[in-house]
Amino acid sequence: MIDLRSDTVTTPDERMREAARTADVGDDVYGEDPTVNDLEERAAAAVGMDAALYVPSGTMGNQIAARVHTERGQELLADRKSHVVKYELGGLAQHAGLQLRTFETARGVPSPAQVDDEYVAADLHRPETGLLWLENTHNARGGLAIAPDRIAGAADAAHERGVPVHVDGARLFNAATALDVSATDLTEPVDSVMFCLSKGLGAPVGSILAGSEAFVERARRTRKLFGGGMRQAGLIAAPGLCALENVSELETDHEHARLLADGLADVEGVDIQAPETNIVLVDVAGAELESEAVLERLHERGVAASALDATTIRFCTHRDISRADLENAVDAVCTAFDTV
Amino acid sequence: MIDLRSDTVTTPDERMREAARTADVGDDVYGEDPTVNDLEERAAAAVGMDAALYVPSGTMGNQIAARVHTERGQELLADRKSHVVKYELGGLAQHAGLQLRTFETARGVPSPAQVDDEYVAADLHRPETGLLWLENTHNARGGLAIAPDRIAGAADAAHERGVPVHVDGARLFNAATALDVSATDLTEPVDSVMFCLSKGLGAPVGSILAGSEAFVERARRTRKLFGGGMRQAGLIAAPGLCALENVSELETDHEHARLLADGLADVEGVDIQAPETNIVLVDVAGAELESEAVLERLHERGVAASALDATTIRFCTHRDISRADLENAVDAVCTAFDTV
Amino acid sequence: MIDLRSDTVTTPDERMREAARTADVGDDVYGEDPTVNDLEERAAAAVGMDAALYVPSGTMGNQIAARVHTERGQELLADRKSHVVKYELGGLAQHAGLQLRTFETARGVPSPAQVDDEYVAADLHRPETGLLWLENTHNARGGLAIAPDRIAGAADAAHERGVPVHVDGARLFNAATALDVSATDLTEPVDSVMFCLSKGLGAPVGSILAGSEAFVERARRTRKLFGGGMRQAGLIAAPGLCALENVSELETDHEHARLLADGLADVEGVDIQAPETNIVLVDVAGAELESEAVLERLHERGVAASALDATTIRFCTHRDISRADLENAVDAVCTAFDTV
Amino acid sequence: MIDLRSDTVTTPDERMREAARTADVGDDVYGEDPTVNDLEERAAAAVGMDAALYVPSGTMGNQIAARVHTERGQELLADRKSHVVKYELGGLAQHAGLQLRTFETARGVPSPAQVDDEYVAADLHRPETGLLWLENTHNARGGLAIAPDRIAGAADAAHERGVPVHVDGARLFNAATALDVSATDLTEPVDSVMFCLSKGLGAPVGSILAGSEAFVERARRTRKLFGGGMRQAGLIAAPGLCALENVSELETDHEHARLLADGLADVEGVDIQAPETNIVLVDVAGAELESEAVLERLHERGVAASALDATTIRFCTHRDISRADLENAVDAVCTAFDTV
Repeated sequence: MIDLRSDTVTTPDERMREAARTADVGDDVYGEDPTVNDLEERAAAAVGMDAALYVPSGTMGNQIAARVHTERGQELLADRKSHVVKYELGGLAQHAGLQLRTFETARGVPSPAQVDDEYVAADLHRPETGLLWLENTHNARGGLAIAPDRIAGAADAAHERGVPVHVDGARLFNAATALDVSATDLTEPVDSVMFCLSKGLGAPVGSILAGSEAFVERARRTRKLFGGGMRQAGLIAAPGLCALENVSELETDHEHARLLADGLADVEGVDIQAPETNIVLVDVAGAELESEAVLERLHERGVAASALDATTIRFCTHRDISRADLENAVDAVCTAFDTV
Repeated sequence: MIDLRSDTVTTPDERMREAARTADVGDDVYGEDPTVNDLEERAAAAVGMDAALYVPSGTMGNQIAARVHTERGQELLADRKSHVVKYELGGLAQHAGLQLRTFETARGVPSPAQVDDEYVAADLHRPETGLLWLENTHNARGGLAIAPDRIAGAADAAHERGVPVHVDGARLFNAATALDVSATDLTEPVDSVMFCLSKGLGAPVGSILAGSEAFVERARRTRKLFGGGMRQAGLIAAPGLCALENVSELETDHEHARLLADGLADVEGVDIQAPETNIVLVDVAGAELESEAVLERLHERGVAASALDATTIRFCTHRDISRADLENAVDAVCTAFDTV
Repeated sequence: MIDLRSDTVTTPDERMREAARTADVGDDVYGEDPTVNDLEERAAAAVGMDAALYVPSGTMGNQIAARVHTERGQELLADRKSHVVKYELGGLAQHAGLQLRTFETARGVPSPAQVDDEYVAADLHRPETGLLWLENTHNARGGLAIAPDRIAGAADAAHERGVPVHVDGARLFNAATALDVSATDLTEPVDSVMFCLSKGLGAPVGSILAGSEAFVERARRTRKLFGGGMRQAGLIAAPGLCALENVSELETDHEHARLLADGLADVEGVDIQAPETNIVLVDVAGAELESEAVLERLHERGVAASALDATTIRFCTHRDISRADLENAVDAVCTAFDTV
Repeated sequence: MIDLRSDTVTTPDERMREAARTADVGDDVYGEDPTVNDLEERAAAAVGMDAALYVPSGTMGNQIAARVHTERGQELLADRKSHVVKYELGGLAQHAGLQLRTFETARGVPSPAQVDDEYVAADLHRPETGLLWLENTHNARGGLAIAPDRIAGAADAAHERGVPVHVDGARLFNAATALDVSATDLTEPVDSVMFCLSKGLGAPVGSILAGSEAFVERARRTRKLFGGGMRQAGLIAAPGLCALENVSELETDHEHARLLADGLADVEGVDIQAPETNIVLVDVAGAELESEAVLERLHERGVAASALDATTIRFCTHRDISRADLENAVDAVCTAFDTV
């Protein structure tokens, strides 16, 4: 099976496994795991923040950020297709008591004028804006890579109102790679960022939440509240350190995504969004198909993909997919569509 | 001052005051206040529900409804300009742990297709839809009166998915009056409704939450959790009983709203939304004005109104505004606009 | 029926009803109800605080206080028989996310040493103490009147730790009356107090939450979140103003409680707690009786009381019970016990 | 440094490290990690439950259990020194909206009569009992091993009331070892159990939450809400499988605890609680010492311990402490006390 469902399926390579075996460890709840400490330091530097925290998942990193930045009873501003809005089980209300104010954006990030329009000041009836949420790359909008100036535009507008800004950068390094900028260019305008060591970078487990020293100190306590404090976490942080070195290989995944999109260009009735990173969205509505039926036919031909909605298929390339895999996948997908 | 800020400013008349003075009372927390019991019975009948609960405010009625209908971790579907979304301090997240899924609708109520599109089934990542929220009349969209078939269309689509439906009917009887239908025509398709005895009906305090026996039993306990259990509440429920008899007078308020809209028709640069009930929205953007400045000028001329947003003024007619008041207000507003 | 279940059953007298009828009112959500404003001002003065807020119930006043004083994730210190612990539907967790730290106390109030012992400083694992909760009189411990020095002892110990102190003074004026001190003597050491205008003071509806200007400003917004913002609330605030003048009559209720306790002194097998205010607890365990059976027998003889637990009956005297009622009740209760 | 602060400091041995290196992995969020699946199956069997879930920490396992068993607005019954009460940052209120009802117990577990006494049925004012919480071994009471009949007594009393029962078995296998029973004897009377693979069993990361199929299905979704869904978690689940085989070695830790207690028997002024498992509590109040000062002196002599409270030191033995380490520790501690 050529698995293009998600880059979350990447498996640790030998180097990562060996790093796990030989990791220097301690009790990270006491702050004594040298490998975790090393990872947090390097990860903070990679995104230009003062401090960082290792967390078991991107969801936890995001949810902690939302809670630490805000007070109960506030609103969070976000594009309505944000991962945190769609796929985190309503955690923002559960964990942080936040009300969502969502809206349509171009490319997943609001313009400064939109930030101004959606901002709400506290009064007797209205919950005030407590946090602006950005996502880069923007998953549900097709892995769009949001450029530094757009990030800065939205973030500056928020900061003028006294509103902090978080970036869900689950695939931040894909964005940096696609835009040919450094990750720090993407995070400089914001207050905190989460990025995943798993997904395209290939670590088996874990994500990073980075921000100021004070922010991370509060996040560390909140991680314990969530049950995210792990003990000899160096064993999985060690592969995470390897993952930080895999950034330069993301361009291959992007190339594969473009090849896939090109390979499907002639399939009739499907609408392919030109990929910017490692995600290819294929709208099958024009062919009068439904996602579930398409996925089934793909599966029969040895290709796994995922359904974004009733008529949109998502393919996600990653480091466990070779050029040969990709070419086989193109053939299989074309065949599947011809015969659906 | 001719006060057109809101119909919440209506003051109790002599009949209501006398009803308060002579009310038969008991301890309503024990269910022993005969006046409250009478009010709850009549109010339930007025909206065609099995049972009803007297609550200190419309906000409390709405928030109790949201909590009783749902489980934590669900989503609530609502037009993005709903009162519950904008003006209830983020209570849905605070009191019920609900995530908002808001969207643009025509006239404040989703089409059946929109309900289908926005509905989410529970899966490992997604918070499922737990409640569809309607509002009638729709305040922030200009007091629109939503017709029975539109209510039924949305409600039926929700019910097919197993999703209950609540109507915020703070001004439900204004809608019924404008549409020349009975209130029960508007509530027949839904599971619960809140309506206000204050506002246009003129009671000093209180609202009604109505639904099935089981719903109201749970709502009664939740009211206590919110601190809404009052003791000899018959004293304010008695004017509420009078308020139920004021429904037939709402047409006058609607006529006044039309007169006001007509009276402002020639003011240059302002855009007046044709009123359906007792609310008149005036968009002053075309005149390059801002709401706050306009309100100030109106105030100097003896008219109070409110700002819906930076460039929209809301006038609200009500039973304490006579025809003469209204005519004076038209003159004052016209003068104010000419000279702003 | 001679109703000794609770002083919540007191009904408004003619003066209160007339005050309601003639009350000067406005929209209190806008802060424009002169009667409410007058009540809030006088009530603040009565308890020596800078500001006060009128709320529909004591439960709401308490729950607002807990939320305003704390941040989510903190602990609240309270005697384990506090009303807020036992009878407010778990609101502290629901509304404020507070964890309870309860403990046994002498007379319902902790000693300074207990406050020190139970205080918890924030660390990586422990929720820090956010609020000390006192209750005066202490309902479930038999209406005990807590003296100023005990209040001050506990409050000072909390303040040394930086922990604010709230008093649930639902029957605060009963405590002041019993101790022959002013209410301000009882509130001077603390940061906020709630007291009920209903109960012994006889108002039909409402309680007061008082504290600093900043505290009450936040409480006012939180009242709206709870749905406690009422409109022409002057109609019920007016009887509340009358209630403030009823303080001097509470001594009669206390005398009646003593008469009742004396009258039951010779009943075999029951243990009577000497009343300090208007509550008489009768432990029927020694007579091998259960509360429910006793209540039923009392009811047959025309006396209503309430069960504090499986073997404890609570009698509560109040202004609607005359001396003759009380004497009849003593006879009925004695007869009931003889024949149970 | 001989580290007796906690058994959480145990580091993975070579076998565990090799297991991590060679683990067969997949995406556990999709249920496709064979090592995690294997671990969950074996762990369920080890505690006699139908299903199990791997979680990053014991805290997360406990918090998920509390949320899945209950509805918002309920009460949780627990010994007041429970870990979940003291050391989980108030999560029960934050994550599950539960109110705590805590009480003193003998040996950390309530008698059936206590369960009956503390049980509360829902009424208009009272939050009903939703869950009984047990802990075995009981950490803060000195690692007490709670016998099956006491567990069953409390659990049966709860079940008669319709209340489910959870055991925080962070050190469940220590209890089974000390009592010479199987773990299933300890869990048979209850509905769910959490136990740690880290701590005495030596895994670097992770705990198990086990219960019925339906319970674990809901727990799995709740784990995602908490951000506890990890990807190629087999890498850390593999050492967890090794940990399951370490149960037979726990007896050595218990022997070491007894040796430590015996070795300190003659130190003047300290009161040593006879250890039942791997925890030794030393009360230094009689020697007029404070915990922090003692810990400092121990540290200077190469021994690390922890402070349970101001005058109680906790020593915890574990698999990284050899007999020689233990004997050296005894000498060092004796010296330290003599010279404090």
